[in-house]
Amino acid sequence: MATTDLKLVHNGEKSLPERVADQLMNLIRTQELQAGDKLPNEFELAEQLQVGRGSIREAVKLLVARNILEIKRGKGTYIAQHTGEIQDPLGLAFCSDQFQLAFDLLEVRMQLEPWVVANAAQHATEEDCKKLLDKCQDVENNIRMGINHLDSDKAFHRAIASCTHNVVMPKLIPVIVYSVDLFGALTRRSLKNETIIQHRAITEAIMRHDPDAARDAMILHLQQNRDSLQLIKEKLNQSKEKENTSI
Amino acid sequence: MATTDLKLVHNGEKSLPERVADQLMNLIRTQELQAGDKLPNEFELAEQLQVGRGSIREAVKLLVARNILEIKRGKGTYIAQHTGEIQDPLGLAFCSDQFQLAFDLLEVRMQLEPWVVANAAQHATEEDCKKLLDKCQDVENNIRMGINHLDSDKAFHRAIASCTHNVVMPKLIPVIVYSVDLFGALTRRSLKNETIIQHRAITEAIMRHDPDAARDAMILHLQQNRDSLQLIKEKLNQSKEKENTSI
Repeated sequence: MATTDLKLVHNGEKSLPERVADQLMNLIRTQELQAGDKLPNEFELAEQLQVGRGSIREAVKLLVARNILEIKRGKGTYIAQHTGEIQDPLGLAFCSDQFQLAFDLLEVRMQLEPWVVANAAQHATEEDCKKLLDKCQDVENNIRMGINHLDSDKAFHRAIASCTHNVVMPKLIPVIVYSVDLFGALTRRSLKNETIIQHRAITEAIMRHDPDAARDAMILHLQQNRDSLQLIKEKLNQSKEKENTSI
Repeated sequence: MATTDLKLVHNGEKSLPERVADQLMNLIRTQELQAGDKLPNEFELAEQLQVGRGSIREAVKLLVARNILEIKRGKGTYIAQHTGEIQDPLGLAFCSDQFQLAFDLLEVRMQLEPWVVANAAQHATEEDCKKLLDKCQDVENNIRMGINHLDSDKAFHRAIASCTHNVVMPKLIPVIVYSVDLFGALTRRSLKNETIIQHRAITEAIMRHDPDAARDAMILHLQQNRDSLQLIKEKLNQSKEKENTSI
């Protein structure tokens, strides 16, 4: 079945650059352009799609904002790495109660991630395991050297998701592990040693293809995150109460 | 805790408009602007953020592309409805094997949605139930009248997710129910009557606060979708084989 049979969802009326952006998306899909491939230049695109160069330029900007294209200065326009995945795609940064957001994300992770690691343990190839161990080591190194480890933590969780061979998981998991970032900010990163030990346990269980051990290790990891978050919330409430009493 | 304590993830180096967009995001958050609120005009923003008006304009375009802002012609720039939620935020349209994508999405839905509806049955308020019934009715009406029912189907699934009172769910579920759209295209919408009956069963179970019945109804719904998809895939493969034999 050709991918072009699948129509994208329409969100009401679209502007001209948005419609041209849709045409560009179709072009990328039908020509099966991959991450890193170069897009034809403005002139060629304008001719191919029968629109002005200004519209092409605006459409390209839209797709850059959606991380579908990236412009390399002096070189041209390319298909982005991690095509179409953007920072905070669910707009979670707009939740007004960031503590509730952190707890609710943990609830979603509790539902998905134990199942993901069990799947990962069942389906991981030798190559997957090698990559996973590398990413696990990266997080450890960053933590030990005192470098911000949130990006490597995300990469670690993405590597776990890739072991499942479900095409949605490596795209979905980094989004819900946004809570790692949130959590890091909320907890002032107090769980460094626990993180090293628990990541290691998850990695080793996947590598020896033990779904139960992987599931248990992930549940422990998430529970500890939740307990720690709860503790911080209570402390914060206590200090607020003190402030109120002393006034 | 102030939301501004939370740093967003950095994806390597950022362009000037991207950095200004981040500043605008901070402004929106600290001033707690909500969907539908108007943004200050270009002059004020340029002065407040100490950047040129051109940079403000480019940053606004970026945030429009990410569905954080929307421009109403002749009126000004506003915070978008469903702030920050964009079409296909995971970039799933780029998966080359759309059948695998459909199956893998169903696998994720199988993991999440039975749990979501059980939660919905436990936490739905009377107001939630009223909204849910409305959305269920909308889908039925659209199906019966032969109108494209995918948008109303998404709204129905979003309404279920809202019943959980988990802030992440109403944002996450519409993303994974992208498969509804995909599925509609793949199956040529052959399951209209089944959809009506199964949606009705899910809705009624939530309304009488019966988590087990809600879970079972959702599992049935997803299984039937998967069986139907499998059938279509097999038929397609058979017709391909026939073509090959007749050559």
